[in-house]
Amino acid sequence: MKARVGAKEVNRGMVDQTKASFVGVDWGTSSFRLWVMAADGTPLAASRGDEGMLHCNVHGFQPVLDKHLRNAGANDDLPVLICGMAGARQGWIEAPYAPTPTHLSELHERAIAVPAEGRDIRILPGIAQVSADAPNVMRGEETQLLGSIADGFSGLVCMPGTHCKWVSIDDGDVTGFATFMTGELFSVISKHSILVHALEAGGAPAADDPAFRAAVASVRDDGAAAFASLFAIRAGQLLGFESREQGAAHLSGLLIGAEIAAAKSLFGVPGKIVLVGSGALGKLYETVLADAGYAVDVADAEESVRNGLAKAAARLWTRK
Amino acid sequence: MKARVGAKEVNRGMVDQTKASFVGVDWGTSSFRLWVMAADGTPLAASRGDEGMLHCNVHGFQPVLDKHLRNAGANDDLPVLICGMAGARQGWIEAPYAPTPTHLSELHERAIAVPAEGRDIRILPGIAQVSADAPNVMRGEETQLLGSIADGFSGLVCMPGTHCKWVSIDDGDVTGFATFMTGELFSVISKHSILVHALEAGGAPAADDPAFRAAVASVRDDGAAAFASLFAIRAGQLLGFESREQGAAHLSGLLIGAEIAAAKSLFGVPGKIVLVGSGALGKLYETVLADAGYAVDVADAEESVRNGLAKAAARLWTRK
Repeated sequence: MKARVGAKEVNRGMVDQTKASFVGVDWGTSSFRLWVMAADGTPLAASRGDEGMLHCNVHGFQPVLDKHLRNAGANDDLPVLICGMAGARQGWIEAPYAPTPTHLSELHERAIAVPAEGRDIRILPGIAQVSADAPNVMRGEETQLLGSIADGFSGLVCMPGTHCKWVSIDDGDVTGFATFMTGELFSVISKHSILVHALEAGGAPAADDPAFRAAVASVRDDGAAAFASLFAIRAGQLLGFESREQGAAHLSGLLIGAEIAAAKSLFGVPGKIVLVGSGALGKLYETVLADAGYAVDVADAEESVRNGLAKAAARLWTRK
Repeated sequence: MKARVGAKEVNRGMVDQTKASFVGVDWGTSSFRLWVMAADGTPLAASRGDEGMLHCNVHGFQPVLDKHLRNAGANDDLPVLICGMAGARQGWIEAPYAPTPTHLSELHERAIAVPAEGRDIRILPGIAQVSADAPNVMRGEETQLLGSIADGFSGLVCMPGTHCKWVSIDDGDVTGFATFMTGELFSVISKHSILVHALEAGGAPAADDPAFRAAVASVRDDGAAAFASLFAIRAGQLLGFESREQGAAHLSGLLIGAEIAAAKSLFGVPGKIVLVGSGALGKLYETVLADAGYAVDVADAEESVRNGLAKAAARLWTRK
């Protein structure tokens, strides 16, 4: 499962049609990723684009899917399994949320068939926490969950990103989850608040960046302190304690540190956690979670979604 | 001190030159307010505009001051005392910060004279907390502080706004302070995050708004929980627990509630607090602070700055 098939590697002639079992699609708000896959989830060809739900609301879903199916050289008889925002109310066809507690191995039973000529196309549901006190929803992450953990897993899963999900799993059941808008807060605060003057553009800091580590440590035991510390990023620079180069690492540390402090208070004493994350951001979370006392297993985010699509597809279509 | 003199009430003929003692100016980042005042701080004429520091960096400070002096009919021999961002490094003339602990009655001793033809113009300093762990700065609020509390006051002062300041005062000494970007967070989250879909434009909610009260209560004992609750504003609407009309009150309650939870943990058991706030926002803070156990005294924000300018002016110029 370590193979990476990017858009540049797509080549119709490469698809071994005897191995192709189904097509998996991760259809997000602003991104589209499609793989022709073997039954075990091995990607045989891929096609990606930025035609997410927001684009398709205007330009249609079927033409986008058809284009990428052609790009990836998918045979006409391959069924398609989709996860993500295509199943939202404002998406292609609504695939209503499965309510918690929900068993991940039964997600496929709630997949909704898209009325289309010829090809079998289904959309997996999201999961909702239907609670007045802590209402929550996910779409796409449920498939990553299915693909990132073993069937009888019990523990936590952390999925960093724009909206970071923390999910509590009991013997394969999703029992509850929380959403932190950490990635989005970083983005809006760094672009639109007074801190724009205190941050330089750039990617995630290194996990061993001293400004990042100090910021995490400063809110580890009191996440709310982050609310009092945001302005200190600017004040610290005005008073000469910190440089503008350190601003982004400082902000990132405050927000991720506060998230983990709040999650610890929600989900109890740190134990086993699966981190579904890649790249620099995944590395940041891995370091901070380990420091906070979690036993971290890392799962690649893209492999997890492919693996989840393959598991659900096998359950949907093996008896054909 | 209850009189309000707005721009529309300005009338040169109304200025009783025999009573005019000095001119006070509150020069912010994006606003300008000038009053011709009697020695006791009573406003005799006023002139306001949006020529804040950001405007004057480009167009100059002296012309803006001169225009408003003319608008308010100020005599040529009246001295001018300025507080706020005009004294920032990137302002007109830098008035270096007074470091904590600093006695408010001595602020005027650090006022910087603007080299100008004829008229005596001074700019009051801000205050800095020169601490590597909790660096902080204020400009303008120090004058509101001076004007809102009695000389020997000990206790807390809360100044809500874009950047809300919490200030610890001991016998008139500013011993420490914290800044919460609560107003700015509300603005950037409601305008630039996914919550834009969950909020309607509008002013501050009513202090007895049930969505506001419930949100405050949900984070009162654990301010960090607000980080896990932001997304619930949207999820709660998707799942039918809340309406879009309630979104702004919900967000406001989470942010103000988290601020007060964090401030309690910073400043200890609630006691006497002076709230420098006006209008709907002041009312929100008054309610939440009282609920949190503070004994609240309310001071009008604009009266406080005028009163502070008058106190400092009296100390600067009475011996003339």
